[in-house]
Amino acid sequence: MGRGRKPTPVADGADAVVRTIADCAREAAEQGGVALADVGGIGIGSPGPLDPYEGVIISPENMPCMHGVRLKERLEESLSRSVRVDNDANMAAFGEQWLGAGREVDHFLCVTLGTGVGGGWVSDGRLMHGFNGNAAEVGHVTVDHEGPRCPCNNYGCLEMYASATAMVRRTAERMEAPGPKTSLTREGLTTRAIFDAAESGDAFAQEMFEETGRFLGIGIVTLVNVTNVEMVALAGGLAAAGDRIFEPTRRTFMDRGTIGVREHLRIVPAALGDDAGLLGAARLVAA
Amino acid sequence: MGRGRKPTPVADGADAVVRTIADCAREAAEQGGVALADVGGIGIGSPGPLDPYEGVIISPENMPCMHGVRLKERLEESLSRSVRVDNDANMAAFGEQWLGAGREVDHFLCVTLGTGVGGGWVSDGRLMHGFNGNAAEVGHVTVDHEGPRCPCNNYGCLEMYASATAMVRRTAERMEAPGPKTSLTREGLTTRAIFDAAESGDAFAQEMFEETGRFLGIGIVTLVNVTNVEMVALAGGLAAAGDRIFEPTRRTFMDRGTIGVREHLRIVPAALGDDAGLLGAARLVAA
Repeated sequence: MGRGRKPTPVADGADAVVRTIADCAREAAEQGGVALADVGGIGIGSPGPLDPYEGVIISPENMPCMHGVRLKERLEESLSRSVRVDNDANMAAFGEQWLGAGREVDHFLCVTLGTGVGGGWVSDGRLMHGFNGNAAEVGHVTVDHEGPRCPCNNYGCLEMYASATAMVRRTAERMEAPGPKTSLTREGLTTRAIFDAAESGDAFAQEMFEETGRFLGIGIVTLVNVTNVEMVALAGGLAAAGDRIFEPTRRTFMDRGTIGVREHLRIVPAALGDDAGLLGAARLVAA
Repeated sequence: MGRGRKPTPVADGADAVVRTIADCAREAAEQGGVALADVGGIGIGSPGPLDPYEGVIISPENMPCMHGVRLKERLEESLSRSVRVDNDANMAAFGEQWLGAGREVDHFLCVTLGTGVGGGWVSDGRLMHGFNGNAAEVGHVTVDHEGPRCPCNNYGCLEMYASATAMVRRTAERMEAPGPKTSLTREGLTTRAIFDAAESGDAFAQEMFEETGRFLGIGIVTLVNVTNVEMVALAGGLAAAGDRIFEPTRRTFMDRGTIGVREHLRIVPAALGDDAGLLGAARLVAA
């Protein structure tokens, strides 16, 4: 096994980004002691939206230069290997179900709590894409149809309540005068700071975790009522808060989940960290 | 092709129900001029919840006597043919995708608006069951997490807003004094009566369709963000209201759906009526 790692030269344009990805692949092969010509295939996990069927990047928020780039084709030309491109959140789910938290189940959802709420879904061992690659947009199930507008165009999506960003925003809003009694300050407010405060007994910080977990549980009820998975793994920074987030999430799921389903669902931490996406992409092209 | 039709003798207990189903199968074969021994298989669409993997009925609300009945096994013994049992809403979706509204798409959702909101889902041509047969509970996606308790155990489910029952209940509530100006009366209030009033220009009745379609559109946004189907077919009595229900549903979907998906989604009437479920069940055992 070898690894290559390079910063994405977004400012230099699409050609530079494609070249850098190809260089990483060459470096990983070299490090792994394998000739590139002997590599069975190359799997790519990329920020979306993208078209996984054609391997075309559509409009990733943080890489505008990649809009419309036919990444699969370009890399196949450059590396003379078969390439598959998929969404990074899908890849993390696919990796976790292969070798991580979900390795013993066939129906599995991975929910990543970060800037947004992303995810991927494996049903009966198959990665789910839907008709144009937009299945399992787990952050975009409605929690409150009169809630705030979401960048996705919907209102009151799970992402508006349970992402790390949403948790910090909601905490800051609550701290406006007359604010609650808390050791938190609005400067440098992060989920980590809220976690540390909660651990030192700050009741307001504890309440913010309770509330975020409650919203997450509400969203998971909807997701499970559609997908009927048997396991939901939580990944990303917020998931690192352990029981602070898992306990209210699980409790809410038990309060609201369908009888006959809720007893079976396990809500667990993801197991593979940043490697999940790499392993999922490898699985795309594994024999 | 032959048909057999008999009332379900619920009051006489499970043995009588199983015998009646077997009689219907024999009658249909006879009518179709086929010896039962030459029938390739028998597909059953039953009210759920049930276990489609084992063919066991779990706890159908209107057939308490069938609780726990191993229907597949019992019918296989009685008829000496291979039998598969699935949920009636799944069967309607499977039939519609085979020979009805969804015959040209591979990613298809069928939503039936009746006493509740039921449905079934075909992804990439496969009927989706999930890990214990509870996938595609389309009526049980959250619309408002602070909404009324749903019989499923969740709060504010789509079913609480967009079923025919919910529409009648909401209409009756609005008519309480000081009620709106309307030709409707609280006696004999049905979706049909509301439809007739709307067609005769009753603005209040029109508003009730507008609102029901809006809730339905909100629910469909969530469903599509998870399933990424390319078509949603509406079935059941409410769907017969045509543009009165389709227009606000489609408009809400366009208002809230994800760009890149919403342009592609078609929301259409189901095409097969009561035959959808029969055809879906036949498809279960079609070669």
